[in-house]
Amino acid sequence: MSSLLGIFLFLYLFLLLSSISAKNREYKWKVEYLHWCPDGVDGIVISINGQFPGPTIRATVGDTIFVHLTNNLPTEGVVIHWHGISQIGTPWADGAALISQCPINPGEAFLYKFKVDKAGTYFYHGHYGMQRSAGLYGSLIVEVPKDEKEAFHYDEELNLLLSDWWHKSSHDQQIDLSSKPFRWIGEPQCLLMNGRGQFNCSLAAQFSKLPIPQCKLRGDEQYAPQIFKVYPNKTYRLRVASTTALASLNLAIEGHKMMVVEADGNYVQPFFVKNMDIYSGESYSILFKTDQDPSNNYWISTSVRGREPKTPQGLTILNYIPNFASKIPNSPPPLPPLWNDYNYSKTFSKNFFGLMGLSPKPPTRQNRRILLLNTQNRIEGYTRWSINNISLVFPTTPYLGSIKHGINNAFDTKSPPNTFSKNYNIMKPPPNPNSTYGNRVYMLKFNTTIDIILQNANALGENVSEIHPWHLHGHNFWVLGYGDGKFDHKKDVEKFNLKNPPLRNTVVIFPYGWTAIRFVANNPGVWAFHCHIEPHLHLGMGVVFAEGVHLVKNVPNEALNCGLTRKMFVKDKHI
Amino acid sequence: MSSLLGIFLFLYLFLLLSSISAKNREYKWKVEYLHWCPDGVDGIVISINGQFPGPTIRATVGDTIFVHLTNNLPTEGVVIHWHGISQIGTPWADGAALISQCPINPGEAFLYKFKVDKAGTYFYHGHYGMQRSAGLYGSLIVEVPKDEKEAFHYDEELNLLLSDWWHKSSHDQQIDLSSKPFRWIGEPQCLLMNGRGQFNCSLAAQFSKLPIPQCKLRGDEQYAPQIFKVYPNKTYRLRVASTTALASLNLAIEGHKMMVVEADGNYVQPFFVKNMDIYSGESYSILFKTDQDPSNNYWISTSVRGREPKTPQGLTILNYIPNFASKIPNSPPPLPPLWNDYNYSKTFSKNFFGLMGLSPKPPTRQNRRILLLNTQNRIEGYTRWSINNISLVFPTTPYLGSIKHGINNAFDTKSPPNTFSKNYNIMKPPPNPNSTYGNRVYMLKFNTTIDIILQNANALGENVSEIHPWHLHGHNFWVLGYGDGKFDHKKDVEKFNLKNPPLRNTVVIFPYGWTAIRFVANNPGVWAFHCHIEPHLHLGMGVVFAEGVHLVKNVPNEALNCGLTRKMFVKDKHI
Repeated sequence: MSSLLGIFLFLYLFLLLSSISAKNREYKWKVEYLHWCPDGVDGIVISINGQFPGPTIRATVGDTIFVHLTNNLPTEGVVIHWHGISQIGTPWADGAALISQCPINPGEAFLYKFKVDKAGTYFYHGHYGMQRSAGLYGSLIVEVPKDEKEAFHYDEELNLLLSDWWHKSSHDQQIDLSSKPFRWIGEPQCLLMNGRGQFNCSLAAQFSKLPIPQCKLRGDEQYAPQIFKVYPNKTYRLRVASTTALASLNLAIEGHKMMVVEADGNYVQPFFVKNMDIYSGESYSILFKTDQDPSNNYWISTSVRGREPKTPQGLTILNYIPNFASKIPNSPPPLPPLWNDYNYSKTFSKNFFGLMGLSPKPPTRQNRRILLLNTQNRIEGYTRWSINNISLVFPTTPYLGSIKHGINNAFDTKSPPNTFSKNYNIMKPPPNPNSTYGNRVYMLKFNTTIDIILQNANALGENVSEIHPWHLHGHNFWVLGYGDGKFDHKKDVEKFNLKNPPLRNTVVIFPYGWTAIRFVANNPGVWAFHCHIEPHLHLGMGVVFAEGVHLVKNVPNEALNCGLTRKMFVKDKHI
Repeated sequence: MSSLLGIFLFLYLFLLLSSISAKNREYKWKVEYLHWCPDGVDGIVISINGQFPGPTIRATVGDTIFVHLTNNLPTEGVVIHWHGISQIGTPWADGAALISQCPINPGEAFLYKFKVDKAGTYFYHGHYGMQRSAGLYGSLIVEVPKDEKEAFHYDEELNLLLSDWWHKSSHDQQIDLSSKPFRWIGEPQCLLMNGRGQFNCSLAAQFSKLPIPQCKLRGDEQYAPQIFKVYPNKTYRLRVASTTALASLNLAIEGHKMMVVEADGNYVQPFFVKNMDIYSGESYSILFKTDQDPSNNYWISTSVRGREPKTPQGLTILNYIPNFASKIPNSPPPLPPLWNDYNYSKTFSKNFFGLMGLSPKPPTRQNRRILLLNTQNRIEGYTRWSINNISLVFPTTPYLGSIKHGINNAFDTKSPPNTFSKNYNIMKPPPNPNSTYGNRVYMLKFNTTIDIILQNANALGENVSEIHPWHLHGHNFWVLGYGDGKFDHKKDVEKFNLKNPPLRNTVVIFPYGWTAIRFVANNPGVWAFHCHIEPHLHLGMGVVFAEGVHLVKNVPNEALNCGLTRKMFVKDKHI
C-alpha cells in the first residue's frame, strides 16, 4: 500500500512540477501590409507587429501558445498555420483556411491556442490564398525542457528561415495563375535569408563573371544580410526552415561540414554532408564546427534546385569573431550541385533514418493504402494540378465544421478515388488533360494506419516532371521509401523501410518517381495534405483527410462563423 | 355608395395593372479579377461576368432588381452599392460594407433585392476598401414606364460612364495611402470612357504638340474608344455618370451645345452649356442636337478639373452616320476651362434649379442643422481626412445590425460633434493637425428635416484646399446654396434657395467654401454620407447617419453574419 501511495505522490509531484514549468506564452499580433525592401527593391509585405519576417516564437515543450491575432488587412481574410505542430485536441487552431477555420475577417481578432508537445524547429505562415508568398511567415522554435538534454551536443544556436521573393505582388501573382491563358509567375527574383536578400548587387560580386555591382551596405538596410556571428572552435546548431513559395534549395556553409540531426522536429540518425537540399515546408537542425581558419569569414549560400536557376544565389556571411562582419570571404561562394542532378538529391533524401532508440517505429501493417497520382491538367482552359484527376478547390464552409455537424451540402461527400488507372502512363503528358474541380474528403477510420503512395508523372509538356514537396497537417509520417517510375505494389512494398524510417511532416516526390509514407490516423480533426509549393496548392494540388471528427471538442464559435456552419447557429431565419 | 365602389374598383385595377407592368429583373453576377487592358497597358480589373465595366442594368420604374452576386475574388470580401437608389424598405441592400451589410466572403453569394422607384441615370460600384478604383462599377438606368413620358423630348439615347485609371493596382494604392510616411497615389494615368482610354497614343495626336503617336487601332482592342454613332438632325439624350476614384471632370462635345435636363435622377430646370463639370458620384442627362456639318465627326472629351492636370484628355468620337467611325475630326479637341478656374465651376454649379411643377420643394424649416468641417489631419503620423476632427474608420459590425439590435459595444455610441469651433480659421492649415479615429453615428430623429453645412478648409499644406464631392446614401437632398469662406448662420441662411433648389444625391464643396443641403430623415436605415473621392473616404472622410432603424424589417441573415451581429445569433457559447 505504502509503495502505491509513494507512486501516487511521485506522480502528483511530477504533474505539479510539469504544470509549474509549462508556461502560457501570450502574443498579441497585428497583421498588416507594410512597405518593405526585402531585396533592395521597394515592395510590400504582410507584416506582423511591424516586422518582416514575423516575430520568432520560442517556447518549451509543454507550453501553451496563445496568439491573439488581429487582421488589419483592409479587405482580405487571414489565417496562420503552425507548420509542424500536431494540434492534438485543437484541430481548429491549425490555421488552414476553410479546412480548420473560417478566414479571420478584416478588423476582427482570433485567438490561436495550442500546445507545443515536441521539441524541434518549426515555422508558421499564412494559409489563405497566396499570403505566404506575400511574406506572412516566421520561425517557431520549441526547446526541450531545461532539465532535459537534446540527443546531441552543441554550444550555440543559430536560426535561418529561407524564403523566395518576387517583385510582382503575390496578390497579382495569384490573379496571373488563375488567368486564361495561364500566366506563370516565373522564377523568384531573389532568395531571402531571414527575410533579406540582394537583387541589384551581390555580396560576392568580385568573384562573379556577371556585371553586377558589389553591395555597398551600411548594415541597417532592410535588405542587408543578417550576418551569422560565431566564435572559433565551437559547435553550432543551425536551425533552418524553408517557407519558399516555389524554390527548392541547396544550402551550404563554405568549408564547413554539416551534420544533420533533426528533420521537421524529429531526431534523425546523424550524417555528414557538405551541402544539403531543403524543400519548401521542411525544417532541419544541423551541427557544424567552427574549425576553419579563424582569420577568414565564410559564405552561407542557398541555390535553386530542380528548376533551371534564374535566381542568383542567396548569400550571407559566417563571421568568425573578431573579424569584421563585412570582411568578404577569400573564395567564391560554394558551387551547388547542378540544378537538375536529381541523383544527387535522391541520394541526399535517402540518407535519412530514424534515430535508433529515440524515434518511434511505424506499425508493421497498414489498414489502407491510398495512391495519389500527381498530374498537371486543364479545366475549362485553366491550367491546374490534380490528384487522381481531381483539382482541389476549397468549400466556403470549413470541413472541420461541416463534418463535425453533419452538414451534407457543404462539400461533395462522395469518396475521392483511392487510386488511379493501372494503365496510366506516368512518362507521358496526360492523354486527356481535362480534369475536374472537386472538394471531396478522404475519410480515414480513426486509429487506423494509412499508407500513401505519392505518384509523380509527366506534366502537360513533354519531358517535364517537377519536384513536389508534400506536407501533411496534424501528423508526422514515416517515409517508407522512394522509387523511380511507377509504383509497383509487389516489388516496391517489399523494399519499404519499416525498421528505422525517418519521421517527417514534409516529403518530396522526385520527377517521374514515387514516395511512400505511413501514418496513424489518430488525431481527431480535418487535415490538409498538399504540395507546399504555394502556386501549386493554389492550382489544386492537395487532398483533405478527416479522422475522428466526432471526438473534436471545444471548437470556438469564431472558427466557424462562415458558410453553412454560420447559418446553423442562427436562431431565426429572418432577423 | 356606387361612386365609392367605383373608386375602389379603379384603385384595384390600377394596382393590378401596376403590378403586372412592374417586372422582376434577375441577374446572376460573378465578381472576379481579370487581366484587362483599359488604356493599352496590361492591367487587372475587378470584372463582373467577364465584363469591364460591369453589365448595364436597364429597368423601368417600379421594377424589382434581383442581383445574385457571387464573390470569386480569392481572399477579399466584396459589396456593391447602388448609387442613387433610395433603398426604401431595403436599407440592407445599399451595399455599403460595414454600414448596411457585412462584406460578402470569397466563394459566397448574396442576393441584392431592391425596387427602383424613380426614373434616372444611376450607376453601381464596389463600396469596400478601394474596389471601385479596381474597376468594380457599371451603369444602372431606370426608365419611365412605357405609358409615361419624360419631361423632355429626345429621339435617341447614348450612355457614357466616366472613370479614371492608374497603372498601379488599387490594392497597392490602398496600402500606399495607409503608409507612414504617406504615399500619395498621384494623378490617374488615364481617363476612361465606358472603361476605355488610350495611354500610349492619342486619337488626336495630329493636333498635339506633345510627341505622342497617333493611335493605330483595329477597333476590337479593349482600349479602343467606344465610338458614339449618331444620325444628323436628331436630338440625343446623353446619359453620363462619373465613378472616378479621384478626378473631377469637364465634359464637352465639340461644336454641340448641351442642355442639362437631369441631375442624379432628378429633373432640373433645363439650361444650355458648351461644356459641363461632372464630379465623382454625379450623374446627368444632357440633350444635344446633331445639327453640325454632317460630313464631319466631332470630339467628345473629358478633362481634369481642380487638380493640376497630369492626365491627358479622355477622348472619343461622335460619329455622324454614314461617316467612317475612324474619321478624325477636323479640329483639335475642345479646350477645357483652366483647371483652377473655380469661378467657372461655381457658375456652372449655381445653374441648377428644380424643375418647376415636377421637382418637390423642400420643407421650409429645418429641425436640426449640422455643420461638418472638412480638414486634412495627421493621426500617429498617418495622413487622414477628418470631419469635425474625427476620421471615420468602420467598425467590424455593420451599423444597421448593431443599431437595430441594440448592441452597444459595436461602435462608439457617443454623439459626434454637431459643429466645430467658431474660432476655427478655415483659411489656414489646422493649428493642431492631430485628429482622432472614430466611428460615431449621427442619430437623426425620424421624419425630421436636417440641414447639413459642409464647410471646406485649408488642407495640411499652406494655400491648399481641395474639391470634395459629397454623396449621401438613401436620400436625395436639396442644395440650398453655396458660398465662399466660412458659413455665416445669419447672412448665409437668408440667401438659401427654398423656392426651387435642385434635388441631388451628390454635391461638391469648393475650395475654402461651404455648401448647404437639406433632406428629410424619412428612410429607415443607416446611411453613409461621404466624400466620393475613394482615397479620401479610405482616409476617413465621411460620416454616418441613422434614422428610424427600429422600423427596418426583413434584414436577411446573410447581411449580418459578421462581427457582433453574428455572435448574437449563436445559440451556444461553445459548439
